[in-house]
Amino acid sequence: MPTQTPSEIRLAGRIKNLTGSVARDILSRTQNKDIISFAGGLPDASLWQNLQLPATPPAAYQYGPSEGELPLRQILASRAATLGLPANAQTTLITSGSQQGLDLAAKLFLEAGTPLILEAPTYLAALQVFQLFEANIHALPLNAEGLEPDALDALLTRTQAPLVYLNPTFQNPSGACYSLKRRKQIAAVLDAHNTVLLEDDPYRDISYEDDAPPPIARFLQKTPWIYLSSVSKTLIPGLRLGSLCCSPQLFEPLLKLKQAADLHSNRPAQFVAAQMLDNPAENQKRILALRHHYRQKRDHMQSALQQHFGDIAQWTLPRGGMFFWLTLPQSRDLAAALESTLQQGVAFMPGSPFFLPKQNNPCCLRLNFSLVPLEKMQQGLRILSSVLKRQQSN
Amino acid sequence: MPTQTPSEIRLAGRIKNLTGSVARDILSRTQNKDIISFAGGLPDASLWQNLQLPATPPAAYQYGPSEGELPLRQILASRAATLGLPANAQTTLITSGSQQGLDLAAKLFLEAGTPLILEAPTYLAALQVFQLFEANIHALPLNAEGLEPDALDALLTRTQAPLVYLNPTFQNPSGACYSLKRRKQIAAVLDAHNTVLLEDDPYRDISYEDDAPPPIARFLQKTPWIYLSSVSKTLIPGLRLGSLCCSPQLFEPLLKLKQAADLHSNRPAQFVAAQMLDNPAENQKRILALRHHYRQKRDHMQSALQQHFGDIAQWTLPRGGMFFWLTLPQSRDLAAALESTLQQGVAFMPGSPFFLPKQNNPCCLRLNFSLVPLEKMQQGLRILSSVLKRQQSN
Repeated sequence: MPTQTPSEIRLAGRIKNLTGSVARDILSRTQNKDIISFAGGLPDASLWQNLQLPATPPAAYQYGPSEGELPLRQILASRAATLGLPANAQTTLITSGSQQGLDLAAKLFLEAGTPLILEAPTYLAALQVFQLFEANIHALPLNAEGLEPDALDALLTRTQAPLVYLNPTFQNPSGACYSLKRRKQIAAVLDAHNTVLLEDDPYRDISYEDDAPPPIARFLQKTPWIYLSSVSKTLIPGLRLGSLCCSPQLFEPLLKLKQAADLHSNRPAQFVAAQMLDNPAENQKRILALRHHYRQKRDHMQSALQQHFGDIAQWTLPRGGMFFWLTLPQSRDLAAALESTLQQGVAFMPGSPFFLPKQNNPCCLRLNFSLVPLEKMQQGLRILSSVLKRQQSN
Repeated sequence: MPTQTPSEIRLAGRIKNLTGSVARDILSRTQNKDIISFAGGLPDASLWQNLQLPATPPAAYQYGPSEGELPLRQILASRAATLGLPANAQTTLITSGSQQGLDLAAKLFLEAGTPLILEAPTYLAALQVFQLFEANIHALPLNAEGLEPDALDALLTRTQAPLVYLNPTFQNPSGACYSLKRRKQIAAVLDAHNTVLLEDDPYRDISYEDDAPPPIARFLQKTPWIYLSSVSKTLIPGLRLGSLCCSPQLFEPLLKLKQAADLHSNRPAQFVAAQMLDNPAENQKRILALRHHYRQKRDHMQSALQQHFGDIAQWTLPRGGMFFWLTLPQSRDLAAALESTLQQGVAFMPGSPFFLPKQNNPCCLRLNFSLVPLEKMQQGLRILSSVLKRQQSN
């Protein structure tokens, strides 16, 4: 819904497209700790209950470089290089969460009417940013293997979009993970059109079966790319730290945009993150513990879903990430269902904010399994399914 | 200079206006600690050499509210209320430095061609943001008392600008501080035109004589306003924390813009700042010590300037803030002078980035006195003045 402001205040045209995050709206209504929330995408705080952050060195008190702290840039660049990306510290920028990477990329490429291609469904906060910058957004249906290369090729030919936004690894919300073959095909299509790839990859480390295939950007031969990463899902979200690495020719304008946005990111957080990530053995141990913990939750959720949703929804077991994505056979009023479940102490995310408003979309729900305690999952899903079943029979 | 990128990458139109910060460029060339830098606006690190930050509570590790932490919002709102602003926690937003307040305000009001009025000279990083958002910028000459109300009135009538950006208290770069009378006059003009005021106030606490008069926003009767504040100048810049408070009708869109920009600011920093600012006695002691420290530096700088610049420049003793603003009688190549002083280990800021490029501006220098150690000031200013004098005689 567009923001209502008194008519005499003259706002920029983009503000008519300004939406709040539905997830954050629901979250702000669920501050009550007794609620069982499948709605957000929050990590499980029990993972860091015994964590003490290293003390901040006084060197971190002064203003710092817009690029970010060199030790952290080196660590994150070397991690990207391990994935096969031609990355180094000089083309790695520390951001205030990977959300800021979306803001910077939008500023770099999007003005009113710029064609942009993304997945349907897609990450809702990315959609929010791209709409704010008044892009002419085209969404292609996503299946479990990824976007269809031929469909992407045809849409690029038709729209001449300068930018494609993809979240190919354990996507939020759908959990989809592009196959290796599909990644190579998509890279070839982007190369053929010389279309910049904005690849968002926050969930890569949270894999429950095999490691995910390398980023799509790794297979590009000539077209430029921006690769977004985050420490929020596997380290400490409260730090609000992310990073981007990119083709060399895009680094300088992105750095200047970062300067204009907030000068630089919080420095104590960068020292803390560098110190925590600089210990590969500890880091690996932490990631394995986190995978183990979330895998248990995923499996428990899968059992509970089979019990309560087996006859009313379809879904695929996610091989990584933090979400189940349920498709219901027919359209219904999920906003009304949400009101009803909230009254019974259960929150979930309706699927529509992950699609463009103008599209005729399937009726979906996103259910987060990282936050809800194991022992509450059954109860929460039982309440949710009974509300949906009652709605169905009305 | 516009960013050069290969022509086949299709960037947004605004990128042609993207400039880096000259100050940051100079700073990145002066990482060498032996340089005497009057160029930036950095606080003196000796002020926090014995400071230990409070430990971060684990509650700060999780994702947080986009508005910011309530205790910090309450403290900052109550501080704004003390200055006479109709502020409360519900209309106070924590930002990633007050630079982000500029980005959010620009997104809210500016699109290509939107008329905007500001001071000449003005804060260069604000100019950078407003140019990026392709505003049609009109600059009014600033004198020691502030902008001329009649000139502002006439320019508002002519341009119908929806937004005026002012830095009325110990302005960066000029040090100007609007008188109480002038503040009331400017407020009346803004009210008459129903033009939103964006008031930037990071230096208020750093006063060397009397306290500064209240913010201009405090005297507005009906037009909306946004008031930016920062903890960077008086607490710890590395935290990258600022805040804005605003008229109630502007809060909701600014909050959504904040969400889209970076979800929320670093949480440990917000806990630290709240804890440090929540002790009024300690806080007052810290501010008084800081004023005393910087006053000494200012006075020492004034003596050295009288000795070395008395015959080649004009300036006013700043009653607050961190800068001397020198005007030279005739135009000259300050970029060449900077190259020359850098070779001799001295950095300063040429004045031109604080003006619109198209204007015919006086020849000015900004000299920061907060960072340079007392014992280096004489030497630095001697070198700088001898370069300028040599240039004059060539």
